[in-house]
Amino acid sequence: VKIGIIGAGNMGGGLGRHWAGKGHEIMFAAGNPADAEAAAKAAGSTAQSGTTAEAAAFGDAVLLAVPWTSVEEAVKDAGSLDGKVLINCSMPLAPDYMSLLVGHTSSGAEEVQKLAGGARVVLAFNTAPAQVIATSPFEGDGVSVFYCGDDAEAKGVARGLIEDAGFNPVDAGALQNARLLEPMTELLIQLAFVQGMGANVAYQLLHRPAE
Amino acid sequence: VKIGIIGAGNMGGGLGRHWAGKGHEIMFAAGNPADAEAAAKAAGSTAQSGTTAEAAAFGDAVLLAVPWTSVEEAVKDAGSLDGKVLINCSMPLAPDYMSLLVGHTSSGAEEVQKLAGGARVVLAFNTAPAQVIATSPFEGDGVSVFYCGDDAEAKGVARGLIEDAGFNPVDAGALQNARLLEPMTELLIQLAFVQGMGANVAYQLLHRPAE
Repeated sequence: VKIGIIGAGNMGGGLGRHWAGKGHEIMFAAGNPADAEAAAKAAGSTAQSGTTAEAAAFGDAVLLAVPWTSVEEAVKDAGSLDGKVLINCSMPLAPDYMSLLVGHTSSGAEEVQKLAGGARVVLAFNTAPAQVIATSPFEGDGVSVFYCGDDAEAKGVARGLIEDAGFNPVDAGALQNARLLEPMTELLIQLAFVQGMGANVAYQLLHRPAE
Repeated sequence: VKIGIIGAGNMGGGLGRHWAGKGHEIMFAAGNPADAEAAAKAAGSTAQSGTTAEAAAFGDAVLLAVPWTSVEEAVKDAGSLDGKVLINCSMPLAPDYMSLLVGHTSSGAEEVQKLAGGARVVLAFNTAPAQVIATSPFEGDGVSVFYCGDDAEAKGVARGLIEDAGFNPVDAGALQNARLLEPMTELLIQLAFVQGMGANVAYQLLHRPAE
């Protein structure tokens, strides 16, 4: 899959490295072009960098992994995203990370869908901390990555990319269920930084068929 | 610990059995007294049944495990809960279970705290399905039970009761964090009944100290 990654922080950079290691072609973009170049260099020879519009045009799938305050601008800069698989892991976190700016009657993912018009938005990767995405401290332990969206094909793509990043995909249904997944981001933040557990925390979904 | 359990369904009944097995004294109450009697019989010789007011007076800790539509009445019927450890696992679910009635700017647990005056409310057990609580399909697999509240002593009691029920307690901070934990209930519902995974689903929190 050709993947445009908008945002070259721990989340975007880490996922890009995982995916590049599986042979996907990557183009990174970032507010600071040097960040995108560094992420591409770290991801290896199948990765390059470009502008936000170039990365969006490059990718069959586009990962949106920018701070919430940059989402509107990033989507605008991306240009047309019609038909793209837009995987969003940007969370509507308040500036101090202590609360969500949007919830219950909407979600960050749904706001992204409104902004991104014809794109087929999938929410994914928000339920694992960027550090876990980046450093895989639970290799082999089966970190679950929940995802949701309204387009079955787009979700199939996202599912494959979750697997290729080394995580266990869990289909969490319709995009509206972002309202359920997004608070789980904030919970990990509270556990890591308020409860003092540190950033190596993640969810595993236990599942056993009923008898 | 002496425990009053208001609500004798899967959740209240199952927890009561676990706790009775650990030697705690239990008093069940339910809208239908026969349900409370049946739960007490199933829990063994350290369990009895009574009215809601009797169960509330009996317990040093009181578990509120009733449908959301019954919460206001149950708290009223309980009488004074001043100083009680009130462990709430009643979720503000819409009648069809497909959404939460309260969220983001408040939570079911906070509404319970408003209704219950001087009680020291702890939210717990809502992040594991009642069937998992009741049947322990993941014995030995470390189901995490998140809990939150504003009173340290009350939380300590809740923590011990989570352990005694056979689950791994995870301190999720202040009661306001119920806004984060409660959507996790709805997510399990979606996974179990919309995504077709069945009711044997639960969360495990993976945690490894950072290097």
